[in-house]
Amino acid sequence: MAQIKLTYFDINGGRGEPIRLAFHLGNIAFEDNRFNFAQFPEIKKSAPLHKVPVMQLDGKVITQSNAMLRYAGKLAHLYPESAEAALFCDEILDAIEDATNALIDTFGLEGDALKSARLSYTDKWLVPYLVWLEQKYASNNGDYFIGEHISIADLKAYVWIKGIMSGSFDYINDDVVSNNTPQLALFCQTIEALPAINLYYQERA
Amino acid sequence: MAQIKLTYFDINGGRGEPIRLAFHLGNIAFEDNRFNFAQFPEIKKSAPLHKVPVMQLDGKVITQSNAMLRYAGKLAHLYPESAEAALFCDEILDAIEDATNALIDTFGLEGDALKSARLSYTDKWLVPYLVWLEQKYASNNGDYFIGEHISIADLKAYVWIKGIMSGSFDYINDDVVSNNTPQLALFCQTIEALPAINLYYQERA
Repeated sequence: MAQIKLTYFDINGGRGEPIRLAFHLGNIAFEDNRFNFAQFPEIKKSAPLHKVPVMQLDGKVITQSNAMLRYAGKLAHLYPESAEAALFCDEILDAIEDATNALIDTFGLEGDALKSARLSYTDKWLVPYLVWLEQKYASNNGDYFIGEHISIADLKAYVWIKGIMSGSFDYINDDVVSNNTPQLALFCQTIEALPAINLYYQERA
Repeated sequence: MAQIKLTYFDINGGRGEPIRLAFHLGNIAFEDNRFNFAQFPEIKKSAPLHKVPVMQLDGKVITQSNAMLRYAGKLAHLYPESAEAALFCDEILDAIEDATNALIDTFGLEGDALKSARLSYTDKWLVPYLVWLEQKYASNNGDYFIGEHISIADLKAYVWIKGIMSGSFDYINDDVVSNNTPQLALFCQTIEALPAINLYYQERA
């Protein structure tokens, strides 16, 4: 097994968190190298393509969070084995990444420009993506997005939806999920209540 | 085997083309449903998240081109089996997708706004991503990006670089690849010369 080091913001969310959760659920040892926002400009300079998270595998330096998440998912047996189920899993990972990129495009704006961009984001991206995601979830008729077992699609969706519901983003109402996609709000409660997830966040509190 | 239908622009490039090539190299039967630019507004209305390509598998409708490419890669034995090699493959797929998204953000602009956006794109995105990609390629010391066999990472990179070199994008010089990353220009020639690829484009000409 490779020596794994994951470098990401010291927050319980964002692009690094589903990877941490996958390693945690699979009992895969890794170095959880966290940094704070003040350290980001320095970290960014040496990161591949100036992006985080960064993964180091026996010294090889890797970018792209969904690639890392899929790797963690394979080690932790949280990535579907059938090509078709894996397609459904990958589709969810990549769609959430698109919606994340669109939100990040609003970072750095201020005042009316921020308000306008966030309201537009909510209408054109957030709600349509949530609705699409809820349809995917509902079509599986179970606790998870794919089949009968938890997968990295659930971890990606859980961290993203929890972030949206957190009220962390100005002009994005924290009830946008429960108002538009109540099943996704319940899905987050289901994931949060899993003993391994619950214990993880208790220990981090 | 599922009945596969792929719906995408009738062009030899873009997000759909690596998927077509993967099916072709693997002799995987699929319906190659092509449409022209005039038909796009109508196709877009019913596409999941209003995006193409769209894949239908036994009637299930799928979005996200890299998810489809990975599925095609698994069926065609063009996706690495080891988790670590697959991580390197996924990293390339996702980085090219980021660079593609940034280029698409310049579509629809005109005049000086287009010129400025394309020059900025070339400096901030295109050249850094090409350089990163060339480093990845060079580190493998062979004809392909990963190991000794062609993979979907090669197909994704080939189609993307060929598109950049085509001169199709105003204010992006068609020698940007050969000037900055000559090994990637040679890589494209290597892929193009593969008998299965060469024959495919001869038959489409």
